[in-house]
Amino acid sequence: MNTQTFPTIAVLGTGLIGAPVARNLHKRGFKVRAWNRTAGKAQALAADGVEACASPADAVQDADIIVTVLNDGRSVQEAMLAAAPALRQGAIWLQLSTVGVDAITSLADWAGQHGLVFYDAPVQGTRQPAEMAQLVVLASGPTAQRETVQAVFEAIGKRTLWVAEQPGASSRLKLALNNWAFALTHGLAESLALATGLGVDPALVVDVVTGGPMDSGYFQAKAAAILADNYATSFSIANAAKDARLVMDAAAQSGVRLDAAQAGLQRFERALAAGHGAKDMAASYLA
Amino acid sequence: MNTQTFPTIAVLGTGLIGAPVARNLHKRGFKVRAWNRTAGKAQALAADGVEACASPADAVQDADIIVTVLNDGRSVQEAMLAAAPALRQGAIWLQLSTVGVDAITSLADWAGQHGLVFYDAPVQGTRQPAEMAQLVVLASGPTAQRETVQAVFEAIGKRTLWVAEQPGASSRLKLALNNWAFALTHGLAESLALATGLGVDPALVVDVVTGGPMDSGYFQAKAAAILADNYATSFSIANAAKDARLVMDAAAQSGVRLDAAQAGLQRFERALAAGHGAKDMAASYLA
Repeated sequence: MNTQTFPTIAVLGTGLIGAPVARNLHKRGFKVRAWNRTAGKAQALAADGVEACASPADAVQDADIIVTVLNDGRSVQEAMLAAAPALRQGAIWLQLSTVGVDAITSLADWAGQHGLVFYDAPVQGTRQPAEMAQLVVLASGPTAQRETVQAVFEAIGKRTLWVAEQPGASSRLKLALNNWAFALTHGLAESLALATGLGVDPALVVDVVTGGPMDSGYFQAKAAAILADNYATSFSIANAAKDARLVMDAAAQSGVRLDAAQAGLQRFERALAAGHGAKDMAASYLA
Repeated sequence: MNTQTFPTIAVLGTGLIGAPVARNLHKRGFKVRAWNRTAGKAQALAADGVEACASPADAVQDADIIVTVLNDGRSVQEAMLAAAPALRQGAIWLQLSTVGVDAITSLADWAGQHGLVFYDAPVQGTRQPAEMAQLVVLASGPTAQRETVQAVFEAIGKRTLWVAEQPGASSRLKLALNNWAFALTHGLAESLALATGLGVDPALVVDVVTGGPMDSGYFQAKAAAILADNYATSFSIANAAKDARLVMDAAAQSGVRLDAAQAGLQRFERALAAGHGAKDMAASYLA
């Protein structure tokens, strides 16, 4: 393939998802430049052929496509403000971070004002699917440049679901999906905590559920983590609390009453206050 | 097989689970006599070879094994009090109802006082698994008569898990399992409600989850019910509210904090107050 057809991509944010995204883009032949607030995380990608940049502006210089994979809307906005002087008119911005309903609207507006083609594209999947290029990309944005965009998504994911032409719909869908992940996490944590509290071996809960209609890969993975007291992070408590707050903000704005989600947020907040922020969200069990 | 080896079984309670249990016991060769508070439900089983009895005492007369499948601890206690004059010393009592921690203790005590061999044996599975003899029996009770008991369980379920020799452990495990079912239900209901409230097609939530780690047979079944607005009952809101209260009672007694379960109970109570008590618990979506 002609190198002309491989655009240069700037990846802003190289955390649990951003780092494997950058690596997978390079593997697929893209020229990848990465920036991360904690510089070491971007520099660690040099061995994988990713060029570490000292600032967002350095990263987006000459980039045809900008990918943001940051913690929240504010981080994304700050990185893009820092990148602004070096942005090329007409560049494509793929916004993968989970930022919620309000932030996605202002980011899309900002993109328009700076002549960028904006795609609202949060991803479904955590560390492991990201590493295996098995994310599901929930994409909303203009049809015009979808061919270019699709090639990027195919390098990082197993599937791209086109949700809408207007940005925003993907971020809203993402909140509903995250809410499902949180509900599974808290439900499992509480069920195992209840068994333990009642003097029943919590492994029996897993035993009975296994192979039945209530079983899932997610159930197995998180149950194993809790039973082994191993909270290696796929999705941190801190990040989950942030996203659960976005869920509650969206629910309040749309007039939807989410009792269990509100209670789950309390668990995340309590786990956070107890110092479990960096642990996997299965540490809801410790709340 | 010699008919001597097939004990006579009295089934007290022929609701969503009790009726198929009685039918499956008869299919397997047991002589089955059934009583139900609403007599019509027991009489409807005549075509399946089950003898309908007018009172608990009539049903347990000459029965070697008594099976209770009733709504709650109080119903079980009332039925057994009514049956008491006709109970045979040494008869086996298989208690399948979900009655919670306190009630199972008093039922076991009562059984001891009346010379019955008591098994705490709640079942995992709702209407459909019951009809297909695919329940999972969570059994606690003395080893002495397990061979006889196991033959009964094999007629109604796909698996018997022996939990403990002392009754109580099974009922406690059952609460943790029901809590998982409730958490799945509310989590799904809230996730689909949030999508809808945010103007996103809730079918997209199902679409993205399908085939991934958060997918399950339970997720698919309840999501389909909600999307079709079809609340045909596998597990009624009224029954779920009752069991969720038992979960919270058990949590309070054991000092376990269940935020999400408490919030879920609120949803069930609200659905109940809105007149959805007879609908399937997927009607948490309507709360």
